[in-house]
Amino acid sequence: MTTPALEARLRIRSGAHTGHTGGLAPGYVQGNIAILPASCAADFLRFCQRNPQACPLLAVSEPGEPILPSLGEGIDIRTDAPRYRLWRDGELSEECDDIRRLWRKDLVSFVIGCSFSFEQALIEGGIPLRHVEQGRNVAMYRTSLPTQPAGPFHGPLVVSMRPLRPADAIRAIQITSRFPAVHGAPIHIGKPESIGIRDLANPDYGDAVEIGADELPVFWACGVTPQAVAVAARLPLCITHAPGCLLITDLLNSRMASL
Amino acid sequence: MTTPALEARLRIRSGAHTGHTGGLAPGYVQGNIAILPASCAADFLRFCQRNPQACPLLAVSEPGEPILPSLGEGIDIRTDAPRYRLWRDGELSEECDDIRRLWRKDLVSFVIGCSFSFEQALIEGGIPLRHVEQGRNVAMYRTSLPTQPAGPFHGPLVVSMRPLRPADAIRAIQITSRFPAVHGAPIHIGKPESIGIRDLANPDYGDAVEIGADELPVFWACGVTPQAVAVAARLPLCITHAPGCLLITDLLNSRMASL
Repeated sequence: MTTPALEARLRIRSGAHTGHTGGLAPGYVQGNIAILPASCAADFLRFCQRNPQACPLLAVSEPGEPILPSLGEGIDIRTDAPRYRLWRDGELSEECDDIRRLWRKDLVSFVIGCSFSFEQALIEGGIPLRHVEQGRNVAMYRTSLPTQPAGPFHGPLVVSMRPLRPADAIRAIQITSRFPAVHGAPIHIGKPESIGIRDLANPDYGDAVEIGADELPVFWACGVTPQAVAVAARLPLCITHAPGCLLITDLLNSRMASL
Repeated sequence: MTTPALEARLRIRSGAHTGHTGGLAPGYVQGNIAILPASCAADFLRFCQRNPQACPLLAVSEPGEPILPSLGEGIDIRTDAPRYRLWRDGELSEECDDIRRLWRKDLVSFVIGCSFSFEQALIEGGIPLRHVEQGRNVAMYRTSLPTQPAGPFHGPLVVSMRPLRPADAIRAIQITSRFPAVHGAPIHIGKPESIGIRDLANPDYGDAVEIGADELPVFWACGVTPQAVAVAARLPLCITHAPGCLLITDLLNSRMASL
């Protein structure tokens, strides 16, 4: 059966779609990607286990296997994201839309939950999201909160921020608490300075949005954290998705809810 | 079988305990009391139905019946609170520790959930509560938020406020969301001015507590709301418990959790 998720993946795989995946295949889970040599995969897996809010693992591949059967039929991690970034020794080496030529028998793929999933639940719950309304990327910030390290992987927690009115913030905490597999509840609310964020108008990733006088900034652990940590470990090779170009899976956002 | 709740009620009924009920019979639900003539009981019941966060009804008696069998064996609303307040035409008429001599065949008793129940869950969840640590009454404020009126009953929502660090505030929202029968989740967080509170240092009821620079004020709908509304309706007769002198029931706080 052809689903919207499979249709989107086939368009991406064929090269017909090489841009962002936001808004593609609504209702289906999208995942952040990190692909690492098997020699450091156990350390990275422990890193994810120790930092579950930032790194909610949706799937880990067998070494050398480009397939991820638990995420969807026929998914091939080498072709099914619209755009990839290659990092060598921690430096961006190139961007490309297909990594088949780079594939090695020792590569392990990690697919990590993304806030797109809980944003759908927030919007369906009547919570306005300014960056979605304005067609921008969500604002993300490096914090002063350390992650729990594992092997070569360590670094600050990265958070995404959404400005919400207080009653909406409370409802958003309730809604996202139901989604532990895609970052779950916020880790902070109000008081950006308490987590080392000096200027909300200057995010470290994504786009700034205005915060109204009657709103509070609400902060969720972000899937950029494991990417940033993997790059900072200066591995000989690390492959990630390009910003906003995620893997579309066959999982339903609605099935991610724990309650 | 003698339970801590029954023991406390017997001490109160005998006049051996006439003070606050905070800390008595830990683990058992305590309730706010409002006793009104049957002629306005239907309006008050509708008021509670329309304002469930402020007025979570634990029980409503039959007219003229002083017993509340669903709350505990042998409970007699005329003797089982340590101290009562009588209001005539909206003015405080007297305080007493027994209302048997005032009982009438047309009185209806309302018992309304109280934040003591969720405070136990917060403390057990490792959330520090300053007013409990300092042995003070919680700070309460009249807000600019109107309640939904019914008949003669209308007026502002009254809230209780607990200062919490942001991560604790998020956890407190999760915990209290499980307790809809005892006020449930907060109705507001941060930004006191948004709900008409000008000065947190001057509560309208209870005691002020300090708020640290790294803390947010978190506001819950408060059981003082229905009391204040009942008094403001200037009924010929209205009986409430005296502040802090609640009805101890046989219900367990832990059984109030919805999940």
